[in-house]
Amino acid sequence: VRYELYYWPTIQGRGEFIRLAFEEAGVPYVDVAREKGADVLTKVLKGSLGGTRPFAPPVLKSGKMVVAQTSAILHWVGPKLGLAPKNDAGRFAVHQHQLTIMDLAAEAHDTHHPISTSLYYEDQKPESKKRSARFVSDRVPKFLGYFEEVLGTRKFLVGSSITYADTSMFQIIEGLRYAFPKAMKRFEKKIPRLLGLHERVVTRPGIAKYLASERRIAMNEDDLFRRYPELDV
Amino acid sequence: VRYELYYWPTIQGRGEFIRLAFEEAGVPYVDVAREKGADVLTKVLKGSLGGTRPFAPPVLKSGKMVVAQTSAILHWVGPKLGLAPKNDAGRFAVHQHQLTIMDLAAEAHDTHHPISTSLYYEDQKPESKKRSARFVSDRVPKFLGYFEEVLGTRKFLVGSSITYADTSMFQIIEGLRYAFPKAMKRFEKKIPRLLGLHERVVTRPGIAKYLASERRIAMNEDDLFRRYPELDV
Repeated sequence: VRYELYYWPTIQGRGEFIRLAFEEAGVPYVDVAREKGADVLTKVLKGSLGGTRPFAPPVLKSGKMVVAQTSAILHWVGPKLGLAPKNDAGRFAVHQHQLTIMDLAAEAHDTHHPISTSLYYEDQKPESKKRSARFVSDRVPKFLGYFEEVLGTRKFLVGSSITYADTSMFQIIEGLRYAFPKAMKRFEKKIPRLLGLHERVVTRPGIAKYLASERRIAMNEDDLFRRYPELDV
Repeated sequence: VRYELYYWPTIQGRGEFIRLAFEEAGVPYVDVAREKGADVLTKVLKGSLGGTRPFAPPVLKSGKMVVAQTSAILHWVGPKLGLAPKNDAGRFAVHQHQLTIMDLAAEAHDTHHPISTSLYYEDQKPESKKRSARFVSDRVPKFLGYFEEVLGTRKFLVGSSITYADTSMFQIIEGLRYAFPKAMKRFEKKIPRLLGLHERVVTRPGIAKYLASERRIAMNEDDLFRRYPELDV
């Protein structure tokens, strides 16, 4: 089976949740726009892959199957990668967590784009400061407090072995640490169990190898998580 | 099979996408908090239903299966209601559309809460005006333009019969018309095919009966779509 991922080649973004799943699983995938350039995405968004035309990247193609939307892609490919249970209860528990994680990711994105994605950050800085303050004081504790409780004393978020919900939670913590280092330093004492999970994920052979490779794109200020010191209050 | 929906009893919100699917299918469901009061949701959010504790309503319970997150609920129950194909390609196409529709719904919500859901609208009015202007000028055309093209000359968004993506698109148009009547009046000439879809959905027997019933909660300003004339530019 050949897996083709179509996503922006210079950011982690939403595509990173999919990259991490493949890297953890050790299953080969082609990160097409990194090999052929971002122009291929223009064609994909016009429907070049067949199937249902995607609204936005990421898109995963495998044989005739074409899926867009991060959570849908992971729900589809998760069991094939051994990163989600095959029974409905477990598979949907992981899917549900991924959807909640994507809600958090969208809110993290909007800390630097509270008015519109069609404006530059520089055009919405006062609003970004306000949104970031609330994000850090209210939303991060609400989301991560929830996951801290859900994890409890278990090793992974769902069941007894790693799923893509765990690799995605790792990515959320990485992103929040990058974007809000000061705020996270204060907050992290409240999520000891999630930090344990983060440690378990970062030391997985596939993940460790990936993070040390050139395949892992460095975080940057065109990305979903951005480090703007003025927003880290 | 007994289906129990847990959602806020005084708003349409995200739960309405699920209510519409059941109403279209003519499959009975218990809208539990409307019968027992919203207190039941407090217990549900503490994990009273078993399964994976939900982060937020809506939650659907059927036997031992408990699912939260609107898109996950519909993906799970859609085929059982006859509102999604059972094959992977079709089922994921509908799921993908629902996820894009939920992205649009979240952006519609943030027009009146651009800074934080933990603040009142009255505390973020200037920012709401800015976000609404961009939402109406950029985002609605981008999302609905996409769906207008995807629909093409077919009767429904996926395949040849109605799916929950169609009932959800109906709800989006209803919500946008409620929240932004002036802007939508201007814009609607650009989406003749989606308006045709809206007409096909509104005249479905199950939907028509529901909309005429007391089960359909009136739109209001505690809801996801809100009519604030100052935001309808």
